[in-house]
This record gives sequence, structure tokens and C-alpha cells, in this order.
Amino acid sequence: MAEALYVIKVGGNVIDNPALLDRFLADFAQVKGHKVLIHGGGKIATRIGDKLGIESKYVDGRRITDAATIDVVTMVYGGLVNKQVVAKLQSLQCNAIGLTGADANIIPAVKRPVKTIDYGFVGDVEPSKLNVAPLKAMLEAGLTPVFAPLTHDGNSQILNTNADTIASSLATALSAHYTVRLIYCFEKRGVLRDANDDNAVINLIDREIYQQLLADGVLSDGILPKLENAFSAIESGVNEVLIGHANDVLPNTTGAVAGTLIR
Amino acid sequence: MAEALYVIKVGGNVIDNPALLDRFLADFAQVKGHKVLIHGGGKIATRIGDKLGIESKYVDGRRITDAATIDVVTMVYGGLVNKQVVAKLQSLQCNAIGLTGADANIIPAVKRPVKTIDYGFVGDVEPSKLNVAPLKAMLEAGLTPVFAPLTHDGNSQILNTNADTIASSLATALSAHYTVRLIYCFEKRGVLRDANDDNAVINLIDREIYQQLLADGVLSDGILPKLENAFSAIESGVNEVLIGHANDVLPNTTGAVAGTLIR
Repeated sequence: MAEALYVIKVGGNVIDNPALLDRFLADFAQVKGHKVLIHGGGKIATRIGDKLGIESKYVDGRRITDAATIDVVTMVYGGLVNKQVVAKLQSLQCNAIGLTGADANIIPAVKRPVKTIDYGFVGDVEPSKLNVAPLKAMLEAGLTPVFAPLTHDGNSQILNTNADTIASSLATALSAHYTVRLIYCFEKRGVLRDANDDNAVINLIDREIYQQLLADGVLSDGILPKLENAFSAIESGVNEVLIGHANDVLPNTTGAVAGTLIR
Repeated sequence: MAEALYVIKVGGNVIDNPALLDRFLADFAQVKGHKVLIHGGGKIATRIGDKLGIESKYVDGRRITDAATIDVVTMVYGGLVNKQVVAKLQSLQCNAIGLTGADANIIPAVKRPVKTIDYGFVGDVEPSKLNVAPLKAMLEAGLTPVFAPLTHDGNSQILNTNADTIASSLATALSAHYTVRLIYCFEKRGVLRDANDDNAVINLIDREIYQQLLADGVLSDGILPKLENAFSAIESGVNEVLIGHANDVLPNTTGAVAGTLIR
């Protein structure tokens, strides 16, 4: 059996909350064995963009990444957030190395084609082109790669890319070499049967249960892309996916499952 | 004889000039064999800091890095500049990987002790603690490390660090494994005998010539730290140091030396 690898994604709401983030990173540093972290962006890019006089544009709730905005997210996600996370993990004896998808050409992407909406400098990952060899070498050397949600188009353009998708794509590609558990950490305790009840965590979801939940219309819109990413990862070789709160979903000593397990 | 390695530092004035930078990166991408790039910061951090309402403070011509400023340089040097250089090199088929000294704990530093001046979050490299193993692994894997002028204190604090010093420290540490040529690229054609005459390039400087130049008082203040770094590197195992213009000092096909050779 292949060695275990945790691919762990932590969301923007956790990045924005120093107390949550510190506790998460302390727990993350304790996770034994091979691990990869992917962090979301958080609202700090919007705050800094505002101060720089760059207006955030949204269409249908999705951010449009224009030329000024891609510079801001490159600075904030790829510089400030990524390097602060790395420095913090280093202080916790976790040998982190901060990366974007441009580094070592690990995550080539294509600028999202314009259909009805031009999302600007947003990258869609090209799963077949992922370069896992440098990542595998880092893991074997005891390093912990930490990814900002940025990719590149191979033609010198940095692209803003969904962190959930980067996580599932990396997990899938690495499942050829490791037994991969993918964990999505956010500010909820898991997938909820009732969006207003933080305790209504669904412990296990498989394809059949998912279809029933969809039919019942109980899932919130925000969780659907996460679940689609999760099923896609599992169907492509990832061992299991766990979705839960940043402060209680990481592997713990009891082995009990907190959060929602996707199989 | 050990394999050859170029450790190449490109200055902030080149980073600030898109035409110079593009040509430099095109030439850099063509350099054969193992290579490491260290880039300076440039004035863009000051411009962005100004827009964010962060005042640049200087004492004796040296920038003071307060808490707001270290965030700005982490964003700009470690994010914007570093990742744009990486994406550009990737487009030129150079398999670059962007790093700070915090990544893989390659360059531990100490916050500069306060004597008469408190420089703030400025890091002095601890040469004996450099971790070259991850760097060597990257080089052997065909990657080209690209460093922003940032280090860390091991206690989660990012530190602003002189790029010339990072270059000479890395060159020195790597000289245990490679035959290292250290190249300082800037906007002058080399060390000048007359600061007002761009053609007054001194082709060769050794310790004896250096003492004479100092005695003659012909060297500009700005070049002295570069020369001190250069001699220190050579005395610690670096094969040779070359100082010259970003667009004509990189190894070329003729083998002719442009710039100033330090031996």
C-alpha cells in the first residue's frame, strides 16, 4: 500500500481570523507524515485593493479578476498570506515551503474562456498537465508544500484559481503515488442538513445519499462545488474526503471522525 | 572538479525597468546549467506603501522596516515581484521556483540588534545556519531557485534582508558543492574608476588593487558593500565574482568578460 498523504485545504474565512488560523496551523503542524496545505485568499486582498483604489467587481457573486486585481491577489495571496503561513509553520517545526502553481510549473492552467461573462485573469486547472514530480521530491525530502490559490498560463500570466479546485486536482494527481486523504477545512463543522443549525452535521455522504440530499433541497449553494470537487476527486483515485471545521477536522489521536466524510 | 553553478543577483533598478528586466530574464533563461537568481526589491514597494498610506522612513539613507513596511515588502518582493519573475521565466522554458529565506528554512536570520539605530524588521543572515540541502535537491532536479530578499527569524517573523548579502551567503554555502561564479547585475557596466563615466570600467580587481583604489578614493560609496561582499565570498570558497550591467554581464558564447571581475 502506498504511503499516506494528507492534502488539506483551509478556507479564506479561517485565513481572515487570526485566532482560528493560529490554532489551525498549530494542529496542522502536528499532523504526522506527508502533507500539503492549500490556503484560500480571504478578504484581506479586497481590503488592500480598496486602499489602493482598486474596485472589486463581482458578477453573479463571482469576483472578476482584472489586471489590477490579479496584481493585488498575487501580492496578497502569493506574498503576504503565503509567506506568513510558511513563517508560522517554520516556527512550529513544520518545514514548509510556499508555492504558487507557477513555481516549478506544478499547476499549469488556462485563462477561463469568455462565454457570457469575462472573469478576467482566472485560471482553470489543466489536470492532465499537473507536474507532481517536483512536489513528490519535496514531500520525500520532508518538506510541506503550502500553496496559494494562484496558477499560471505558461505565457507569463499569473491566474487567480479556486483553492478547492487546486486541492482536489493536487489530491487526484498525487493519488497515483500516495494513499490520499483530502480534507476541506472551513468555519462550519461539516456539511449541514440545515444551514442554520451548526450541529446538523451529516457524518457520511456517498453518491446515493448526495442524490437524496439534492432531491430534498437541503444543501446550501456554497457547499455544492465543494461536494462536486470531492466526488470528482474520489472517482479519480483519492481515498476519501473529509469536510469540517478548521479546528476539529484534522487527524487526531482518537481516530474519531469529526466533520463530514465523503466516500 | 565540482559542477558549475551561477549565483546571479539582479538589482532593484533593473526590477523597476520593464525593458531592462525583460531582456535580463531572456538572457538569464539562456544560461546553461545550474543557476540561482536573487532579485532586489525595487521602488515598487515604496510606491505601493505610499498608496497604502505607509510612510517610508529612512535613517542615514537606510530604510527602516516597521511592522507595516515588512507586510508591504513581504507582499511586493515575496509575492508580486517574485511570482512575476517566476511566471516570466517559466514562459521562457526556465523551470523557476520562487522562494524566500523562510521557505524550506533555507535562510535563517536574526533581527538586526539595535545599537544606535533600530532598523526594525531587518534580518542579518546567519551563514552557519543556511540550509543548502533543499536548494541542492532543487538544482539537481533541474529547477532554478529565484529568491526574494526576505528571510525569517524562526519565530514566525519575516525579515527584510539585503539581496547582495543573500547572494554572497548562498554562493558561499553552495561553494561546498559546486564551482560557484557569483554575478552581481545592476545598471552600471561594472565597478567604475570614475562614477560619472560609464565607460571607466575596471576590468579586474583583486585585494591589492582594491586597497589601491580605496587609497585613491575613486570608488563610489554604493559599490563598497558589493565589493566587501564579493571579497568575503571569494575568501570563503566562491570561485570568482563578476559585477556588471544586467544586459551584458551574463555568460555569453564568446567567453569574453564584460564588467568587473573580482578575484
